[in-house]
Amino acid sequence: MDRIPSIKKMVDLSQELYHLCPVLPAFEPPKLDYICIGPRDGWKLEQITMNLHTATHMDAPAHLGEFDKTLDQFPLDQFQGRLVLVNVSTKSAGEPIVVSDITPYCNQLAADAIVLFYTGWGEKRAWTKEWIYESPYLSNEAAQYLVNHQVKAVGIDHFSIGGTGHDNEETHRILLGAGIWIAEGLQLNDTELLQGEWHVFAMPVKIRDSSGAPARIVALQWTC
Amino acid sequence: MDRIPSIKKMVDLSQELYHLCPVLPAFEPPKLDYICIGPRDGWKLEQITMNLHTATHMDAPAHLGEFDKTLDQFPLDQFQGRLVLVNVSTKSAGEPIVVSDITPYCNQLAADAIVLFYTGWGEKRAWTKEWIYESPYLSNEAAQYLVNHQVKAVGIDHFSIGGTGHDNEETHRILLGAGIWIAEGLQLNDTELLQGEWHVFAMPVKIRDSSGAPARIVALQWTC
Repeated sequence: MDRIPSIKKMVDLSQELYHLCPVLPAFEPPKLDYICIGPRDGWKLEQITMNLHTATHMDAPAHLGEFDKTLDQFPLDQFQGRLVLVNVSTKSAGEPIVVSDITPYCNQLAADAIVLFYTGWGEKRAWTKEWIYESPYLSNEAAQYLVNHQVKAVGIDHFSIGGTGHDNEETHRILLGAGIWIAEGLQLNDTELLQGEWHVFAMPVKIRDSSGAPARIVALQWTC
Repeated sequence: MDRIPSIKKMVDLSQELYHLCPVLPAFEPPKLDYICIGPRDGWKLEQITMNLHTATHMDAPAHLGEFDKTLDQFPLDQFQGRLVLVNVSTKSAGEPIVVSDITPYCNQLAADAIVLFYTGWGEKRAWTKEWIYESPYLSNEAAQYLVNHQVKAVGIDHFSIGGTGHDNEETHRILLGAGIWIAEGLQLNDTELLQGEWHVFAMPVKIRDSSGAPARIVALQWTC
């Protein structure tokens, strides 16, 4: 018997990282430089300078308040789980995601759940005021609801799970304070994700003592 | 029926990335800075400046010669496969890995094989002449042997699959020229890897047009 299960589909939930790509505008966007230029030097080699919370990335509790709980301390098993995709793409600009948006999914909220919110802001990613400031965001009450259900992780297709307004810090604090990692900067628009069971793997770069890290985040369907 | 298979074990094949960690010494080692210091600023946030081929990373064909075949172009499915762990930890310093080291594994070399060479240099990782210059390395002939067997990927627990001597460039050219990605900077010393079937996931940061990228690389055993 084949002991490695067969993959039916893989979907990338990650955004591209590139020179000056849109990010949280309070800090410098990433900069890419050549160290070696291929046709000139034989080898092609680049250098990047970036905030660790750039493009698709994960936040550890150390990002806010729990400064000693860094991302490299999480057991690998915490970085995979069952996708619970919450479709909130009908929200208006700047509208909070509230408990009643999540209750239809409540029987899926368990210790293996990676709850990702599809707002549609992944497709809007650009240096625009709309993309930066008008995303739907997870309200404090909805964050606490997820904590109460002891989910494994929470994510969103925007650079901030809590948006850019008044609720942001407390939404982060509720999730991170409960030891839940957060994925931000996702791309969740593949309609295949709406059908069947999906397994999420969120693989952050293993950076020592860090508050977060860039990550490749993917969803898989298995045939077994 | 549960459509997500159960994980029996997960092993991290990745090295830590940290300020001034040992890397290919021809270029600057990574630098980490604080943007926000947690206890002072409320949030903890770091910036990194690094060569994209730092710590555990993957090389695309664009790294040498095939400048238009960048890592972001690989289908996700190419980033997972069946582990073939070739134990060459009895090699002396600077000794080449040759075809006869691989022939005992030849019935495992197929299109789903991710062939990783365990030299023991992962445990030696430090700013020493030994670690930098004396690793066992994949010879040109052994690289060509792997290409002939059409394996999916090749990796090693040192920063350079071809070492730092005369064979290095050609070993890279043989593998990358055949469209095979390379994993470098691995940690392969977990003895559990020697028993049973292992599934490798190598997840690089999705950097546009890049010659390579830092990656989290893990091995899994399934119960199904």
